[in-house]
Amino acid sequence: MHTITVNASGKYDVIIGNGLLSKAGELVKNAVSTERFAVITDDNVSPLYFDVVSNSLKEQGFEVFHFVFPHGESSKSHETLIKIYGFLAENHLTRTDCIIALGGGVTGDMAGYAAATYLRGMDYVQIPTSLLAQVDSSVGGKTAIDIPEGKNLVGAFKQPRLVICDIDALSTLPRDFLIDGMGEVVKYGMIKSAELFEILMNHTIDDINEVMEDVICRCVTIKRDVVEADEFDVGERMLLNFGHTLGHSIEQYYNYVGISHGRAVAVGMEMITALAAKRGLCDPSLSQRLSDCLERYSLKITIEPKPNELGNACFNDKKRAGSSIRVIICSDVGCSSPVKMSIDEFTEFISQE
Amino acid sequence: MHTITVNASGKYDVIIGNGLLSKAGELVKNAVSTERFAVITDDNVSPLYFDVVSNSLKEQGFEVFHFVFPHGESSKSHETLIKIYGFLAENHLTRTDCIIALGGGVTGDMAGYAAATYLRGMDYVQIPTSLLAQVDSSVGGKTAIDIPEGKNLVGAFKQPRLVICDIDALSTLPRDFLIDGMGEVVKYGMIKSAELFEILMNHTIDDINEVMEDVICRCVTIKRDVVEADEFDVGERMLLNFGHTLGHSIEQYYNYVGISHGRAVAVGMEMITALAAKRGLCDPSLSQRLSDCLERYSLKITIEPKPNELGNACFNDKKRAGSSIRVIICSDVGCSSPVKMSIDEFTEFISQE
Repeated sequence: MHTITVNASGKYDVIIGNGLLSKAGELVKNAVSTERFAVITDDNVSPLYFDVVSNSLKEQGFEVFHFVFPHGESSKSHETLIKIYGFLAENHLTRTDCIIALGGGVTGDMAGYAAATYLRGMDYVQIPTSLLAQVDSSVGGKTAIDIPEGKNLVGAFKQPRLVICDIDALSTLPRDFLIDGMGEVVKYGMIKSAELFEILMNHTIDDINEVMEDVICRCVTIKRDVVEADEFDVGERMLLNFGHTLGHSIEQYYNYVGISHGRAVAVGMEMITALAAKRGLCDPSLSQRLSDCLERYSLKITIEPKPNELGNACFNDKKRAGSSIRVIICSDVGCSSPVKMSIDEFTEFISQE
Repeated sequence: MHTITVNASGKYDVIIGNGLLSKAGELVKNAVSTERFAVITDDNVSPLYFDVVSNSLKEQGFEVFHFVFPHGESSKSHETLIKIYGFLAENHLTRTDCIIALGGGVTGDMAGYAAATYLRGMDYVQIPTSLLAQVDSSVGGKTAIDIPEGKNLVGAFKQPRLVICDIDALSTLPRDFLIDGMGEVVKYGMIKSAELFEILMNHTIDDINEVMEDVICRCVTIKRDVVEADEFDVGERMLLNFGHTLGHSIEQYYNYVGISHGRAVAVGMEMITALAAKRGLCDPSLSQRLSDCLERYSLKITIEPKPNELGNACFNDKKRAGSSIRVIICSDVGCSSPVKMSIDEFTEFISQE
């Protein structure tokens, strides 16, 4: 079991290890002071893990409430959020009670946002059950929902009180979801860690599980460092968006159907690195190395739209500031920086032949 | 012109004086760095003040966008909020651009909440045009919307960059709205300032305008002090809720129709002080002095429900923490404190004959 402590506006632990779901009650007892918990899950995760978490909470004498919503990105909406608020109000949850987000990225983002805004903020704990959520979305306090105009356009910064990453939960993960999470793992290697990238190049999607605890710890440590340096995403934290500006536009192009977040980010990273190579911002061999790595994790994907067809959606991206946009470019493995471009420059950049 | 500086998580000025609407452009130029402003108003305020504010912004070379919604508490909903998000996205407003909330409490609360949550937070400026908004809701960074289960149950703490209180705006205020605002003014006297209460007892609703600038400055100064001591409402700031727990329940009882916020707070203050006197928590004469003061500002109102019929709605109140509720009690004019009661104690308290 590993504990990584995050020192942001709130200080909290990320606990990584095996068999943690059944210890959830004990673990949260040390992190929050309430005895009333609202567990929010989707209909995929609920039958798998709700009982073990709920029993563990009840063993500590806690009261447990349960909200289930239909799985999938399309649930990360105001419609579901309003139902969550209703559920919290009906059960008289108060500011000092606690939400538990049990599930993947959608659950964590939305339940976290409900916690950030209900009664102007209550406590929450993340129990991520997907690889993507464990390495990325559950740590750092970014919460959000989607609106018709774009993904994650409405949200809040709100640090959880505790994050519990049970590696065992990944064993029930369909291969597709493992691949999805690997998109973000490759990203961490590219932006910050040649060592992690090396580990990835020594494995494939079929045997990466053997070193998963190490991989997750490395990703969470990178994320922790970045979040501590820039909690509110005005500098260093932007690096985490490598591949995301185009990635979000790709998801939007497909209406969030048929292409997962990790895969969209993989395509986004590949596109942006190929474009950067053409511009001389990195060596063409980097583009090749990234492609090789993505190939190992079934993340080499062909999509319909060309980069220049994705421009419009980028302009609503949160990375935009005034009339400019910050594009994250890797100059080498483990080495990234934000490049400020005007809308025109960015349009030209993504229109390169 | 008076400037009162608030030192909360963000530092900002509250500027109070005459003829400030036409100087809005200049004033915001010193407070924010963007050149793009989204002015949010309701259909009452828009025809009165949008042009003067917009022209003043344009004189500074700023770009102005305009969103108008139907006036009234029923607009302070997810429905309007979602439209505001759509408007911000359509016009490509970014994190570094600025929302201006031009109007009363509903506008300030909702536009502020949009600013707190769109793209996880953008800047906003409050230009309150009602007395209630000038003395209370525009200062201190509480933003919120209502949900069917209760008023202000969803929201965020987000400090504005600047608050501009133009006294002249109050001159177009229907008498009803002036009375409404006086409810909160009386509250400030009761909880923190015997001096302010004295001023109020030397005037009536018909001549209070003569000393309005002084009255507003006193209220904002009290609010500033309280917010600086306890921005996130876990201690001192709760005092501002004097009369509000029952007040909110009264508004909810009437479905937010036919009784304004300030009036509901006035009834709430009167009820709670009468109950406190019965319990020996204050002298019975305090209850009489409060009634006399409310009488002067047309705030002596008879309502249908008795205190004990308002209990249930109170339990969803944000002042509730776990299984207890904090009731603000004044022991004398200018002297208030939170009293922690269990749900049962509170039920018994409001059921006194």
